[in-house]
Amino acid sequence: MNGKFIVVEGLEGAGKTTAIKKVIDTLKEYGVTDIETTREPGGTPLSEQIRSLLKKGHPDELLTNMAELLLFYAARIQLVDNVIKPAIKRGITVVGDRHDMSSQAYQGGGRGFDQTLMMGLRDTVLGDFRPDFIIYMDIDPELGLSRARARGELDRIEKITPDFFLRTRKRYLELAELDDNVVVIDASQTIEDVANDIQTSLYIWLENAS
Amino acid sequence: MNGKFIVVEGLEGAGKTTAIKKVIDTLKEYGVTDIETTREPGGTPLSEQIRSLLKKGHPDELLTNMAELLLFYAARIQLVDNVIKPAIKRGITVVGDRHDMSSQAYQGGGRGFDQTLMMGLRDTVLGDFRPDFIIYMDIDPELGLSRARARGELDRIEKITPDFFLRTRKRYLELAELDDNVVVIDASQTIEDVANDIQTSLYIWLENAS
Repeated sequence: MNGKFIVVEGLEGAGKTTAIKKVIDTLKEYGVTDIETTREPGGTPLSEQIRSLLKKGHPDELLTNMAELLLFYAARIQLVDNVIKPAIKRGITVVGDRHDMSSQAYQGGGRGFDQTLMMGLRDTVLGDFRPDFIIYMDIDPELGLSRARARGELDRIEKITPDFFLRTRKRYLELAELDDNVVVIDASQTIEDVANDIQTSLYIWLENAS
Repeated sequence: MNGKFIVVEGLEGAGKTTAIKKVIDTLKEYGVTDIETTREPGGTPLSEQIRSLLKKGHPDELLTNMAELLLFYAARIQLVDNVIKPAIKRGITVVGDRHDMSSQAYQGGGRGFDQTLMMGLRDTVLGDFRPDFIIYMDIDPELGLSRARARGELDRIEKITPDFFLRTRKRYLELAELDDNVVVIDASQTIEDVANDIQTSLYIWLENAS
């Protein structure tokens, strides 16, 4: 049987790393043992090179919004074709730290690319490949960014105006509303409550999916 | 007055470098003095990094056709937005070593991406930005590749089956047929005849364009 592709999404400081650990623990409790994790952008040798380009940019040149978008998709299709699809085919469940919803939210919502362009590019690049389940960790950008800042984790993308992240969160929530495969977790709760919500949502999904 | 964007296209070994020199000499004879040259993929710090990724690939990972296509476009939009458009706006005539026609021919014709996808991606990324004049150096792939091989210039893309280049040339010729801004030069002629043809074509175009 094919494995599943489960994705954790959310703004910086939403607690994605902790959420991914909880997802993996919950899967194991449920008896799912063959698990791989991925991160985007990145996760293959070439995609990691693209990630580095995206994260660092260049001191003498502005990375245009369009080039940024194309680089995200280049990294994504490398990961999908060379890692995620082959793993799923071998029955492995893949837990992804970000996937296409990030582009829809950050580049579509944040950068302001229109939805027709964004969905067109997604369909052109990914065809009908979609995650089976998405856990969106919802957080107020101000709170999320202050958490990320406290960890000293601000890269090129994160050094953007607060409005950018408000638009990104708005698009995340709009997309979650439209997609039955997305569950929204209130990431401003205590760690215990967040963990419980993730466990419960994932159990419900696993019960329905199997 | 805005500068113009003139592009030299063609397969490996078609003599693009010599053609570009002839284009520049002819422009100068005609009184065009503000000239810049570009090459694709590349021509900006970030685009050169993308070029390096495209040329080298990675020993442990296949660069997918789709990622390759997206990387070419990422490099292209950086060059167009950060170099070509600003130069043209300052009245500079830009002479490009390859531009979008290369993607249409190599990725569309050679790799086999369908034309709707190729033109859709071009329009999405470049909008209505197009070269003012294209000189396509037409050559039999076998002859071109043997020339390139003699110079020891075979990279990742050039180490492909002969059929790939036959399909690429076919698409080049189809596109040239459809586009009044493209002139086809028979690159199998002697250097003198090629140079004369380029000079004549460019003069005719300059007369009509001014």
